[in-house]
Amino acid sequence: MTPKTSSGHPQHIIVGLVVLVCFTALFFMYYKPAISWLPCPRTEPTPDTCKHVCLDVPKMEKAAQLGNNCTLNYTMVQQQTADTQSPVLESAQNTKVVLIWSWPFGHHFNLDSCGSELGITGCRLTDDRSQLDKAHGVMFHLRDIGGDLSYLLTLSRPPLQKWVWMNMESPANSPQLPGADHLFNLTSNYRRDSDIWVPYGRLIEASEEDKKTFQIPTKDKLVCWIVSNWNVNYKRVGYFNELSKYINVEGYGRHFDKYIDQDDYAKVMSSCKFYLSFENSIYKDYMTEKLFNALKYGTVPVVIGPPRVNYEEYIPGDSFIHIDDFGSPQELAEHLKLLDQNQEMYEQYFAWRKYFTVKESPFGLEHACRICEYLNKNHNFRVFTNINQWYWS
Amino acid sequence: MTPKTSSGHPQHIIVGLVVLVCFTALFFMYYKPAISWLPCPRTEPTPDTCKHVCLDVPKMEKAAQLGNNCTLNYTMVQQQTADTQSPVLESAQNTKVVLIWSWPFGHHFNLDSCGSELGITGCRLTDDRSQLDKAHGVMFHLRDIGGDLSYLLTLSRPPLQKWVWMNMESPANSPQLPGADHLFNLTSNYRRDSDIWVPYGRLIEASEEDKKTFQIPTKDKLVCWIVSNWNVNYKRVGYFNELSKYINVEGYGRHFDKYIDQDDYAKVMSSCKFYLSFENSIYKDYMTEKLFNALKYGTVPVVIGPPRVNYEEYIPGDSFIHIDDFGSPQELAEHLKLLDQNQEMYEQYFAWRKYFTVKESPFGLEHACRICEYLNKNHNFRVFTNINQWYWS
Repeated sequence: MTPKTSSGHPQHIIVGLVVLVCFTALFFMYYKPAISWLPCPRTEPTPDTCKHVCLDVPKMEKAAQLGNNCTLNYTMVQQQTADTQSPVLESAQNTKVVLIWSWPFGHHFNLDSCGSELGITGCRLTDDRSQLDKAHGVMFHLRDIGGDLSYLLTLSRPPLQKWVWMNMESPANSPQLPGADHLFNLTSNYRRDSDIWVPYGRLIEASEEDKKTFQIPTKDKLVCWIVSNWNVNYKRVGYFNELSKYINVEGYGRHFDKYIDQDDYAKVMSSCKFYLSFENSIYKDYMTEKLFNALKYGTVPVVIGPPRVNYEEYIPGDSFIHIDDFGSPQELAEHLKLLDQNQEMYEQYFAWRKYFTVKESPFGLEHACRICEYLNKNHNFRVFTNINQWYWS
Repeated sequence: MTPKTSSGHPQHIIVGLVVLVCFTALFFMYYKPAISWLPCPRTEPTPDTCKHVCLDVPKMEKAAQLGNNCTLNYTMVQQQTADTQSPVLESAQNTKVVLIWSWPFGHHFNLDSCGSELGITGCRLTDDRSQLDKAHGVMFHLRDIGGDLSYLLTLSRPPLQKWVWMNMESPANSPQLPGADHLFNLTSNYRRDSDIWVPYGRLIEASEEDKKTFQIPTKDKLVCWIVSNWNVNYKRVGYFNELSKYINVEGYGRHFDKYIDQDDYAKVMSSCKFYLSFENSIYKDYMTEKLFNALKYGTVPVVIGPPRVNYEEYIPGDSFIHIDDFGSPQELAEHLKLLDQNQEMYEQYFAWRKYFTVKESPFGLEHACRICEYLNKNHNFRVFTNINQWYWS
């Protein structure tokens, strides 16, 4: 046995060295310590969980929340990171790189149009995920994250990069992501209390030209509604069923088997005295294109949505009719008929046109550009620690 | 009698004419119809209240909220206004005029320093109330409005002028103003969900110079507290009384008869390992200069305030100690003593200094400049319809 052992010795050393080299190479290929100022979902901060969370999982965000009980491990990870990986954020002054993680609902837009569309400069938008380490901010459209959350948690992430939770659906139509707390830095949403507020539309000061040229479009219908998403559990369906007993409503869209394309959409709206801007669900600030299109195309919106007082934060109180103003659908129907007979009263709903015009927000593009604008203006620490509680509570 | 009458006739005509001229002159001196897109405090929208509200009181804001039931009167007022008074807002492109209605708490600042202090351009700040009709925005410091509210309601107000409710005190220390709903367009406050968010301080990305030069200051005290507003009903007083049974706290300020001036303030803070950043009341986002000064001057804040998860939205989880991390004041005292004996553990509380530095917000000035910045960026309709419910509910 001895001769065998002795003759095999150099081979063992070579094999050992090869294995060591391979292991080292593999280690440096795959080991990417990450640092982030995002703390992880809260667990009880004991020294034991610290060890587990901060060292076993290569994510700095796991550490910050542990606070004082975890500072040693925290700094060890931080130290590694500082030594081996510097932020590689693009340094061009006043140019911020925003990565569109996925096109929202598959909707593409021109990446070079922040300046021309919104007057926002100093932006470079990209949809190239290989640019992740160069991005100052990353926009994640909630509805497109889906099962990717666990993948996101494995991503290496420069320390000052901001992750933005972007979503325009109401809570009823948005999936909660367990584990999303502490993952994002910023929110971009229709709610005014989001960090980067993008409402579906705004009333902005009208130009002199706008003021002079606006005319109420010619009308040949009284009340219209375009609807595809017909759900008998929605408040709007019950209200419509009752309302249509007392007044004729011209129905369009999939539900009424009268599909109209984008071009006809504006034409139909303009030709109706009133339009049912009925939201699918009732939430604070949730006033969608159903409202702003109606205002834009020169019809009077009849709204189901949050209370009147919430609408009046964003549009003049005499620019719309709220179903809450009436005791019943029948009373509303009577009022609409009255207005139909009184042109002077009807025209008062357009008084706001002397001052304002409607500007809708280009979906996705406006979010990305406003994120860029925010990043150019704000350089402060910010973590969204409780997104699920904020949005769904 | 006839001769008398006859001889007096020309004099009567002259007197009548003089009276008529005087009356006309007075009328045009004092008659200033106002229009605004601010609806008034809600009353039941009936034709009767319409008449009263829209016509008796010369304020357009009384009208908009009345919505469809009030459109006729609304437009009458609007028509008058449009005919007799055009907006006189300064038209220089990209320059917004902000009127400081009163110096907040009497605190004056340099009206020309938005650019130099905050890099915000395109602003003209003024404290001259005679410029009211030229201002795009007016900043009202809540605590200085006092009994002036009824006076404010009589003011003439250009249609697109924005009134900003500015306040940095917590709800516990802020007076509710009945009648303030629908009066203001925007809020400027420490709460992140205000329109023009001005926190007491921010952690911003550190410059390379900052990162290199920061050193933990020399310490000769363990725990310090500077306090003037001693109120036994405050949570912080009870906690302090208990804590100081287990650890020595160096007390400063009026309560401890050790008054220190502004110069000594930084020196004292720097010389303490820990500083009690105890807020006077507990509200979301209410983290004041007590916290940001401690971070700035190189001591470790021990906080009483909103929950840890709220702090971690704005400062790293390992930069502070929260009393909620401990079961009792005694446990906290033991932890502070432990850190006092372990320099390496103590230093981890300054790990964030590798990335961030503290920027405090210049009181009043930052609000005024950010209002200007907001007005330059946003031209949309906006009314704050429920300020009392928002802030105090």
